Amino acid sequence: MNTALLTDHYELTMLQAALASGAAHRRAIFEVFARRLPAGRRYGMVAGTGRILDAIENFQFGPQELAFLRDLVDAPTYDFLARFRFSGDIYGYREGETYYPGSPIMVVEGPFAEAVLLETVVLSILNHDCAIASAAARMTRAAGDRPIIEMGSRRTHERAAVAASRAAYLCGFGSTSNLMAGLEYGVPTAGTSAHAFTLLHDSEEAAFQAQLASLGASTTLLIDTYDVAKAVKTAVDLAGPGLGAVRIDSGDLATAAIEVRRLLDDLGAHQTRIVVTSDLDEFAIAALAAAPVDGYGVGTSLVTGSGAPTANLVYKLVTREDSTGALQPVAKKSVGKPSRGGRKWAYRALRDGTATAELVTLAPDEHAGRPLLVPLVRDGAVVGREPLPAARARVRASVTELPAIAHSLSPGDPAIPTIFK
Amino acid sequence: MNTALLTDHYELTMLQAALASGAAHRRAIFEVFARRLPAGRRYGMVAGTGRILDAIENFQFGPQELAFLRDLVDAPTYDFLARFRFSGDIYGYREGETYYPGSPIMVVEGPFAEAVLLETVVLSILNHDCAIASAAARMTRAAGDRPIIEMGSRRTHERAAVAASRAAYLCGFGSTSNLMAGLEYGVPTAGTSAHAFTLLHDSEEAAFQAQLASLGASTTLLIDTYDVAKAVKTAVDLAGPGLGAVRIDSGDLATAAIEVRRLLDDLGAHQTRIVVTSDLDEFAIAALAAAPVDGYGVGTSLVTGSGAPTANLVYKLVTREDSTGALQPVAKKSVGKPSRGGRKWAYRALRDGTATAELVTLAPDEHAGRPLLVPLVRDGAVVGREPLPAARARVRASVTELPAIAHSLSPGDPAIPTIFK
Repeated sequence: MNTALLTDHYELTMLQAALASGAAHRRAIFEVFARRLPAGRRYGMVAGTGRILDAIENFQFGPQELAFLRDLVDAPTYDFLARFRFSGDIYGYREGETYYPGSPIMVVEGPFAEAVLLETVVLSILNHDCAIASAAARMTRAAGDRPIIEMGSRRTHERAAVAASRAAYLCGFGSTSNLMAGLEYGVPTAGTSAHAFTLLHDSEEAAFQAQLASLGASTTLLIDTYDVAKAVKTAVDLAGPGLGAVRIDSGDLATAAIEVRRLLDDLGAHQTRIVVTSDLDEFAIAALAAAPVDGYGVGTSLVTGSGAPTANLVYKLVTREDSTGALQPVAKKSVGKPSRGGRKWAYRALRDGTATAELVTLAPDEHAGRPLLVPLVRDGAVVGREPLPAARARVRASVTELPAIAHSLSPGDPAIPTIFK
Repeated sequence: MNTALLTDHYELTMLQAALASGAAHRRAIFEVFARRLPAGRRYGMVAGTGRILDAIENFQFGPQELAFLRDLVDAPTYDFLARFRFSGDIYGYREGETYYPGSPIMVVEGPFAEAVLLETVVLSILNHDCAIASAAARMTRAAGDRPIIEMGSRRTHERAAVAASRAAYLCGFGSTSNLMAGLEYGVPTAGTSAHAFTLLHDSEEAAFQAQLASLGASTTLLIDTYDVAKAVKTAVDLAGPGLGAVRIDSGDLATAAIEVRRLLDDLGAHQTRIVVTSDLDEFAIAALAAAPVDGYGVGTSLVTGSGAPTANLVYKLVTREDSTGALQPVAKKSVGKPSRGGRKWAYRALRDGTATAELVTLAPDEHAGRPLLVPLVRDGAVVGREPLPAARARVRASVTELPAIAHSLSPGDPAIPTIFK
């Protein structure tokens, strides 16, 4: 799908005025960073890079887009847009790396005219996907070895849901309810039944029987439509002790899980797993650590970033050519929102395998630590694509290398300091 | 774009099991409602209906979708999906109506097999668009006659941004930065320049000159890149007193606006408008009511629903056929999440033109007030489409008919009670 109009109007007015002034062709470097993490968060999680590469490949002004823009821009701008393909370079943090205030998670280099056009879609993707991933990473850490199913599609925009599924899987969720995420990104999909299925049938028993007949005894039966204890008994009576799982979607989940475990064990269904859902977030998951729960389903809090629905990343011009052709660092001085001029490099400093600092430098420094910026686009061609499972493995490694305080769910400072050198 | 896979996996497993049990063809009625409004909100705003009608028309399983589903469902289910078109009826609140806890804002009737499949996409659209619209309506009310530009695209998913622009325009925003919203929904687009444009040039003066040369004196100059007072003087020196507007994007906006107004007036630029941006929400807008501000730009807080990024609407089976063919009300009894069985009708009760209650009845009652449910789809065909400007006019009327307490930004109870009869 063409992404060119997923763009703010002012990118085009800036382009038009800069084409007229001659400054449009100046080489420019924009950086994406967050001034701060969401209140109390210990780290941010990079996600969306792969989607940005797709979006840039599909960023061109076709006949429909040009027809729409004909009255909005002047003729030289129209001609520029009609020929537009991004020809510059992009570097970025890999998906699955953590980030901190000031981390330059993406660096876009090219003529101002080209780099400015990408601002909106780059930020939209990163602000959404990083927000979801930053929440998801906390949830999978809180869940430990217990699997989490992503099931928030219905609580967010229908296409944001697909991106949220992808980000959740990246961060260790085991599966998603979202079928499109299965088709587009290969995320494993899962799902069994809702209360409506039970209510559709003449009795809970008839509903369970129908589900077991069609999906087999390994299915998950939803047991809280009427009376939980009665439903457990009906379920095991019908499925036998080999019943795959039961799902509890209401009430105090810890209390309910303990009661259901006891009932299942009394019926000999020792292997039947208990899955809980119902407005879970990372705090509720952590609170259930001691309860006999075998898996979680998470919806609303995942797709809304658990209190931080946007990552508040910005896209700022940090360097541009001057009239002599030399590159000059630039920075605005707005009250409360100053920026740091100059193109940055970034490294993760480690001691004995544990992260100690985020080093942001104004020149390459191979001794500073693990380099965080890798080439993603070179001369307009995507060079940094990687399979989603590779990024998924990186999340585990990059969360594991953090100091223990990073895993505290209590609000506090970023887990490691950002040091500008 | 095909919407059929914007669906939770469990809709298909329920379909499969119900096709096998024979219950799939039972006539069913699902209702969409919110158990409660976001904390402290006085009303919700319906939005997204028009997008749902588009989504339903594009809901079919084509070759790509069927290939993906071949291993996920059994043969009868596959055949059902291959032939699927929704053939039922949908009623709903019009876009631009307010809603309250329990308001049945959409009613979907058809065979269970058909109505269950629409659950996810219907909820995704309504939960997103109603959340944005409910925040937007508070903002336009707080802004009074001053126009608001929607500029939040970069802070949300790239396609959610387009829907958010649409919802904001519906609720009285004057324009959007999002070009796709202009193309797809005819929302007026607006934008001039960012700090990057000033930084690109050798001086602020050169940047202003470039912008004025290309966009004319009626443009909006961004004046907080370096020193606001100096920028105002440069702006009026270059543009003359006919300068269209200046934009302030940082600092304490009330203080800055007073200072800038004084500077502009001293320079004779009495008609130059002042536009303010920078993390505005409905509270900040209200706090600027006494400041000399002529327009607002709102981003993050709009696209994140100003603290309530999802409307928490649910889609519940309330009635279904039994084995004799009679319709039976059904309701689950889950702890803390009970539902009310039976198909509902809804009316806005009014006294002297002011809303007094939301009446939700189990049978039509023509004397109860203004009927809120209108036909949207009949026998699978869309019958309820309306132009966006018609819905936009409805917002003004439906907000105006509310009691004064509805416009309080302080947290409190819904503005009118929901009465179930």
